[in-house]
Amino acid sequence: MANVRVAIIGSTGYGGVELVRLLSQHPYLQLSALYSSSLAGQSFIAEYPHLQETLPDDVHTLEQIDVQQLCKKADVVFISAPAGVSAKIAPLLLAEGVRVIDLAGDFRLKQADVYAQWYHHEPPASSLLTQAVYGLSEVYASAISNATLVANPGCYPTAATLGLVPALVAQAIDPATIIIDAKSGVSGAGRALQQHVHFSEINENVKAYKVNTHQHIPEIEQVLSEQHGATVTVTFTTHLMPMTRGLMCTTVASVKETQWCDVDRWIAQYKQYYTDHPFVRIRPAGTWPATKEVYGSNYCDIGFSVDPRTNRVTIISVIDNLVKGAAGQAIQNANVMYGFPAHTGLLGISLYP
Amino acid sequence: MANVRVAIIGSTGYGGVELVRLLSQHPYLQLSALYSSSLAGQSFIAEYPHLQETLPDDVHTLEQIDVQQLCKKADVVFISAPAGVSAKIAPLLLAEGVRVIDLAGDFRLKQADVYAQWYHHEPPASSLLTQAVYGLSEVYASAISNATLVANPGCYPTAATLGLVPALVAQAIDPATIIIDAKSGVSGAGRALQQHVHFSEINENVKAYKVNTHQHIPEIEQVLSEQHGATVTVTFTTHLMPMTRGLMCTTVASVKETQWCDVDRWIAQYKQYYTDHPFVRIRPAGTWPATKEVYGSNYCDIGFSVDPRTNRVTIISVIDNLVKGAAGQAIQNANVMYGFPAHTGLLGISLYP
Amino acid sequence: MANVRVAIIGSTGYGGVELVRLLSQHPYLQLSALYSSSLAGQSFIAEYPHLQETLPDDVHTLEQIDVQQLCKKADVVFISAPAGVSAKIAPLLLAEGVRVIDLAGDFRLKQADVYAQWYHHEPPASSLLTQAVYGLSEVYASAISNATLVANPGCYPTAATLGLVPALVAQAIDPATIIIDAKSGVSGAGRALQQHVHFSEINENVKAYKVNTHQHIPEIEQVLSEQHGATVTVTFTTHLMPMTRGLMCTTVASVKETQWCDVDRWIAQYKQYYTDHPFVRIRPAGTWPATKEVYGSNYCDIGFSVDPRTNRVTIISVIDNLVKGAAGQAIQNANVMYGFPAHTGLLGISLYP
Amino acid sequence: MANVRVAIIGSTGYGGVELVRLLSQHPYLQLSALYSSSLAGQSFIAEYPHLQETLPDDVHTLEQIDVQQLCKKADVVFISAPAGVSAKIAPLLLAEGVRVIDLAGDFRLKQADVYAQWYHHEPPASSLLTQAVYGLSEVYASAISNATLVANPGCYPTAATLGLVPALVAQAIDPATIIIDAKSGVSGAGRALQQHVHFSEINENVKAYKVNTHQHIPEIEQVLSEQHGATVTVTFTTHLMPMTRGLMCTTVASVKETQWCDVDRWIAQYKQYYTDHPFVRIRPAGTWPATKEVYGSNYCDIGFSVDPRTNRVTIISVIDNLVKGAAGQAIQNANVMYGFPAHTGLLGISLYP
Repeated sequence: MANVRVAIIGSTGYGGVELVRLLSQHPYLQLSALYSSSLAGQSFIAEYPHLQETLPDDVHTLEQIDVQQLCKKADVVFISAPAGVSAKIAPLLLAEGVRVIDLAGDFRLKQADVYAQWYHHEPPASSLLTQAVYGLSEVYASAISNATLVANPGCYPTAATLGLVPALVAQAIDPATIIIDAKSGVSGAGRALQQHVHFSEINENVKAYKVNTHQHIPEIEQVLSEQHGATVTVTFTTHLMPMTRGLMCTTVASVKETQWCDVDRWIAQYKQYYTDHPFVRIRPAGTWPATKEVYGSNYCDIGFSVDPRTNRVTIISVIDNLVKGAAGQAIQNANVMYGFPAHTGLLGISLYP
Repeated sequence: MANVRVAIIGSTGYGGVELVRLLSQHPYLQLSALYSSSLAGQSFIAEYPHLQETLPDDVHTLEQIDVQQLCKKADVVFISAPAGVSAKIAPLLLAEGVRVIDLAGDFRLKQADVYAQWYHHEPPASSLLTQAVYGLSEVYASAISNATLVANPGCYPTAATLGLVPALVAQAIDPATIIIDAKSGVSGAGRALQQHVHFSEINENVKAYKVNTHQHIPEIEQVLSEQHGATVTVTFTTHLMPMTRGLMCTTVASVKETQWCDVDRWIAQYKQYYTDHPFVRIRPAGTWPATKEVYGSNYCDIGFSVDPRTNRVTIISVIDNLVKGAAGQAIQNANVMYGFPAHTGLLGISLYP
Repeated sequence: MANVRVAIIGSTGYGGVELVRLLSQHPYLQLSALYSSSLAGQSFIAEYPHLQETLPDDVHTLEQIDVQQLCKKADVVFISAPAGVSAKIAPLLLAEGVRVIDLAGDFRLKQADVYAQWYHHEPPASSLLTQAVYGLSEVYASAISNATLVANPGCYPTAATLGLVPALVAQAIDPATIIIDAKSGVSGAGRALQQHVHFSEINENVKAYKVNTHQHIPEIEQVLSEQHGATVTVTFTTHLMPMTRGLMCTTVASVKETQWCDVDRWIAQYKQYYTDHPFVRIRPAGTWPATKEVYGSNYCDIGFSVDPRTNRVTIISVIDNLVKGAAGQAIQNANVMYGFPAHTGLLGISLYP
Repeated sequence: MANVRVAIIGSTGYGGVELVRLLSQHPYLQLSALYSSSLAGQSFIAEYPHLQETLPDDVHTLEQIDVQQLCKKADVVFISAPAGVSAKIAPLLLAEGVRVIDLAGDFRLKQADVYAQWYHHEPPASSLLTQAVYGLSEVYASAISNATLVANPGCYPTAATLGLVPALVAQAIDPATIIIDAKSGVSGAGRALQQHVHFSEINENVKAYKVNTHQHIPEIEQVLSEQHGATVTVTFTTHLMPMTRGLMCTTVASVKETQWCDVDRWIAQYKQYYTDHPFVRIRPAGTWPATKEVYGSNYCDIGFSVDPRTNRVTIISVIDNLVKGAAGQAIQNANVMYGFPAHTGLLGISLYP
């Protein structure tokens, strides 16, 4: 197949460097340019010396973003920049016929007012919000295959919604009872310096943050509501764990009928729902995935427990926040957009131990 | 005040060595003998070389348990042994007039059949279960002060119940809606070798375990039911975190009336409830404790968030699982039993960072 | 090219599971059987559930070692078993025409008495010690290409000798002055349960061990002496670091002549020596590699500092102990033995961060 | 004894908060004021919420440094500020009769030109460098007891010199052969945000830094030269370990005479040298201290190995970099200055595990 030229905006952050890693193993997507607003003119290698021998010879210097130049170099652009940046750049790129996959949150929420409320930023134009396709390809593959602008899901929403959508589709749980406890590795907070992710502060520490105010809450509710066919409201609590990568959602909900007090039924429903989606793997009864089992990979592993004492199900879903929760899923979306098999270049398994 | 002589059974485990550390700083409790069934005859220092200069000169050798000898050496015994051991030894010690503080789970549950169901062991005699006082001194101080046999609470139940009792007493939450997500450092699994706590398996990893089957579930429900005045059933999920010490319970429940959708009301109620209990500290609105803030200390710190979108409260409670969750609380119980101020020898603050 | 069938003996240890991971990405080496003496008959997936979808359908059960059966299934065998095992099995396999790559230490030392002295085991037959080729392919590629029995280097010797051989070849340092301080991630100690690698013991801890008695000392000296052309004796101190993967050697030695008090000369010499060896990468002056920069990869990165105050050079060499220090190097050796390019299937770059 | 009033300048850094912790357990030193140039006017509790109940009621607000005010509030000041700050403030305080213990490096080096060369700062006045006493109380107790200005040793020099002074005093080693490999926890880099100590960068990573240029090199050489009676030059390499606290020096040197090829002789010499110094503990032959064995304590533990193959000794010395390497040693110096026993308030043992 023909090669697709790929540029990265925001390439020195953790999403960016993970894209560089994964693209180096991809047979068709070819890295053609690296952009950085803060470090333009400098060498990418100054930040990541071990990538000296990996980068293509003409892709070592971080360039200042210039839409006209960029359009000549790339067919598709991954934007891995802070919230608010892609809202400005994406329309310019789209106007030039360049496709955009946005790893930030600017285009994920369909309603501008909800964006403004949770992000405390000016929202993008409503037409763009409408145009953007939510890039959870296990649920929206068809729309993604025709998209020019893809909003790559957040790390938490990826694990949360992959863990819940088949249950809602099957009417297995009471949507008014969903409690999600989310635990993330520290790399999810990005590479920018902040006190709470200074090594000595978060090592040997577990910390809750943004309780009831995390901007991923409306994103999760939007997907669940859309799949359920009615408004779903969740309690969602985020925690930082003393590790670099890995994200777990421990989700509890009440089952609707006693027939769902049977873990095998859960396993069957999820295996069925994800039949054609190799990145979601379902664990046997009595076992649950640990985050390390997907470390460095694009998999989302899911396990279940049903408690007849409480008539509740506990769903454990895990991902690597930088792969399936960011760069890997972005490449998966590019695969779907360009008609490559979804798993192209992404079948590397986890580094264990 | 007169010195109290203290012996430890099971002294080389993590509960035991933490008792040794804390006793070395106590003005009245005096370590008089160390017992170990597996390592009897060996030197304690072979296991913990850095304690050479700390131990009293005549307390270096691990002794085989001999009730007659022990009774001559100690006024009170801390038993930090696997489940089932203290059920056998405690009655012999009590018969000789030695008081017992049991750090294992043998005497925590009041009903023998519940013990058998969750522990898969033969339960102790019912008379002993009746005699034993549950050693959560913030709730049961009066009974502890008269006890000869104290069942020291489990690490998870300590954080869970200190986080919930004032809410149940105040009728603030619907007891049918309690979901507790618990996260523990690895030392909670003890010092015995097991594959899942081998360094390379749990480092950079988060793992759920014993989902819906953890033996601390009936212990939590027993305390909550007793304080609520009616049966309380909870969903309680345990996870191992890649760190040595620290335990967090993230508890979510529906508030009963909208007046409880006010975080200041929560803070006031908890400060009131724990007025005379300096080891429970309440955080200001909008902040939540991290586990490291109690690292190595006997404190339990608690913070709240109330969500008007869902009418649910989120309660974050943290302890050091080896101190307030084990050895520190055991010494606190000894203080109460002997009439010393509860905080005697326990006011060391956390090692931060 | 034709596929080569590969069996693994000792497949559930960390060397084994890393071989499984790397073989899953190799175009020509095809996993055909998994052996385990301790877990024969059980499923590999019980140990590593995340590999369910990765293993070939007929390679899920761990088989008891049976040389006759094995010879029908495999062209080459990787032995990743405790010291002493391959000494017994390898000759049987070689007699049947199966090639052997031994990841343990049994065939690394050329002199049986030296083996006995440092390993405290019965040495293999001298004829086998003679037949075995030391699998450091950056130094011994030619011999490896003709070998039927390859002794895969130890993790420490790999980093130590790659850091020193070009210096000795160039007569740059006084071989009587070599001091190597080695720091390893905990996975180097393997998957077997031991107290000193129990999580709570080694987390937040640095520990020296086997000081002056580590069995890798004679292995390092054998390579250095052979390359130097005269006996080289080193001081080599090993430490465990609180991390899973990664190994660093910090090597100090006196330079022979002042012309070597020039870091650029060091860089030039090493780049020259490793011209055809892409897995060794040399860092620019003033920078040194960190272990994470090779995490999960087969690279060995090297940096230098020369101190005119002391006329000594400091050489920093890093590897991933499970990849270049074990499984990756073993596959590299298989590549060389079968005439594939050395880097086949091994160009994955490090997981960073 | 009468209380001594203590102020801290630079109180929100890790040295500062560790002083607050240790002072809270001291019977005679009483915290009277906290100063911070960057956060003046703010509450200390905003940075360290868990210290709310620990601080004296009138010591919650961080004050702007004002020498006149400070002199009324404190008898002695601990300065825990970046290099260059105490050079300016200390003379003003001393002029008012306030004693100063400086935890930074400004007054450690006796020669102004050496300071300028390694610190790249303007040196303090030579008269102050002369007046300052180096606060390694195991070596210079007598001078400290009469000092008004104490230069608290650096963390690395503390472990390095305590590990080497008795050997040099005994003429046991050739001072031209000293190689020190130093490994530190990340808290040694302080609380200020820097990329290389961002959690995701240094977790699961070992990194060498400032190779041959660390400003602690001349400090170590000054002490060793003074004790040896002739110039000593060392090779000293610093590394960051993925842990918060703990520091190890692995020191190798050639013994002068074969009588020193006897580990018991080393143990005897060091026990003799440190007879009256309880914070230095010597390990039995064949064992070496791990950093965790001094975690949170003021101890320095030392072990030895002698290698007859090379005629070299390996000395392993460990400290907690924030306690014996900073705040604990500062309080030890205050004890000596005020005539309290050196260990007053400092006998807490390590948190293990």
